[in-house]
Amino acid sequence: MEDDNKRHREKMRKIKAARDRMMATKTDKKGLIIVHTGPGKGKSSSGFGMVMRCIAHGMPCAVVQFIKGNWKTGEADFLRDRFSDECTFVISGEGFTWETQDRERDIAAAQAGWAKAKDLIRNPEITFVLLDEINIALRYGYLDIDEVVEFLLTEKPAMTHVVLTGRNAKPELIEAADLVTEMTLVKHPFRDGIKAQAGVEF
Amino acid sequence: MEDDNKRHREKMRKIKAARDRMMATKTDKKGLIIVHTGPGKGKSSSGFGMVMRCIAHGMPCAVVQFIKGNWKTGEADFLRDRFSDECTFVISGEGFTWETQDRERDIAAAQAGWAKAKDLIRNPEITFVLLDEINIALRYGYLDIDEVVEFLLTEKPAMTHVVLTGRNAKPELIEAADLVTEMTLVKHPFRDGIKAQAGVEF
Repeated sequence: MEDDNKRHREKMRKIKAARDRMMATKTDKKGLIIVHTGPGKGKSSSGFGMVMRCIAHGMPCAVVQFIKGNWKTGEADFLRDRFSDECTFVISGEGFTWETQDRERDIAAAQAGWAKAKDLIRNPEITFVLLDEINIALRYGYLDIDEVVEFLLTEKPAMTHVVLTGRNAKPELIEAADLVTEMTLVKHPFRDGIKAQAGVEF
Repeated sequence: MEDDNKRHREKMRKIKAARDRMMATKTDKKGLIIVHTGPGKGKSSSGFGMVMRCIAHGMPCAVVQFIKGNWKTGEADFLRDRFSDECTFVISGEGFTWETQDRERDIAAAQAGWAKAKDLIRNPEITFVLLDEINIALRYGYLDIDEVVEFLLTEKPAMTHVVLTGRNAKPELIEAADLVTEMTLVKHPFRDGIKAQAGVEF
């Protein structure tokens, strides 16, 4: 047992030294383009977890929710009812596209959301913007991927973070991003007839 | 253009019909064992996003943070300062294990956190419990995986959700879980010398 502890201490000492050396090289800060994609859970909810962190740090932030318009979600209620000073919340769209079945209305909603998103990203007071489910609008061609990428690369203020979520992120966006995470589905209770539940899914 | 819209409408009608049929089979509710693992970002932050949803829905919830003890995190400040009525927040541990370099102290902290976690999970008032970074404590053997899995399968109230986060989730836990997401790292700015930043990482 004493030997175990000694070996453990020695191993941890080496890990800490290696980590400290590595961290010493990480000295820069910059506003990041962050993408959460993939079929697994956690793409939007981790975006909202970051919004919570921003509010905690006193960083003014904003959310534009594409596509999820006619859903009643916990995160929308929470931020609009309790943190409207700290977080600007915009809903653009009227539900997933197969709900509306009206392509022109969906395009108009997505474009209106993107116009608002550009204003929020350009706003120097705001340093964190979550574009929730924008990848769906990009995938269906409701927004032009080249325009979105060009805007992010040329007009996003240097210290502003922008998080873009949704399945099937376009390759052009992944190429432009600084931080990309793919949420992979390992196991899902939908397969066993379990429906979406409050707290977990919305 | 009119043809495009017509084709789109027809396609969306079929997607909606298929989705409605599929959703009609998803009628059950149950408390889920949820695991967020993998090397990518979003494991903890999506857990905190779900906590935000629970607070929004008026579902009393709890967080036990393993391992991250001596970090000052936005989520801890936010929940403890503003939502202590809605969310019980317990910190167990004194930082990642390579920071303390003291195995016995780490084991004692993890065990104390687990004892508290069991009380919170058993509490019928609480229906969502986030065990943040518990996978690290399990991986280092600070907690016994068989005991944790047995407790979740036999003592967790039927309608309570428990979320377990951290890299390298044990196979036994993945086997027992209902919903497992692996966060995969596609691209990370650490490689370019960018350090952890407020809002994004903590």
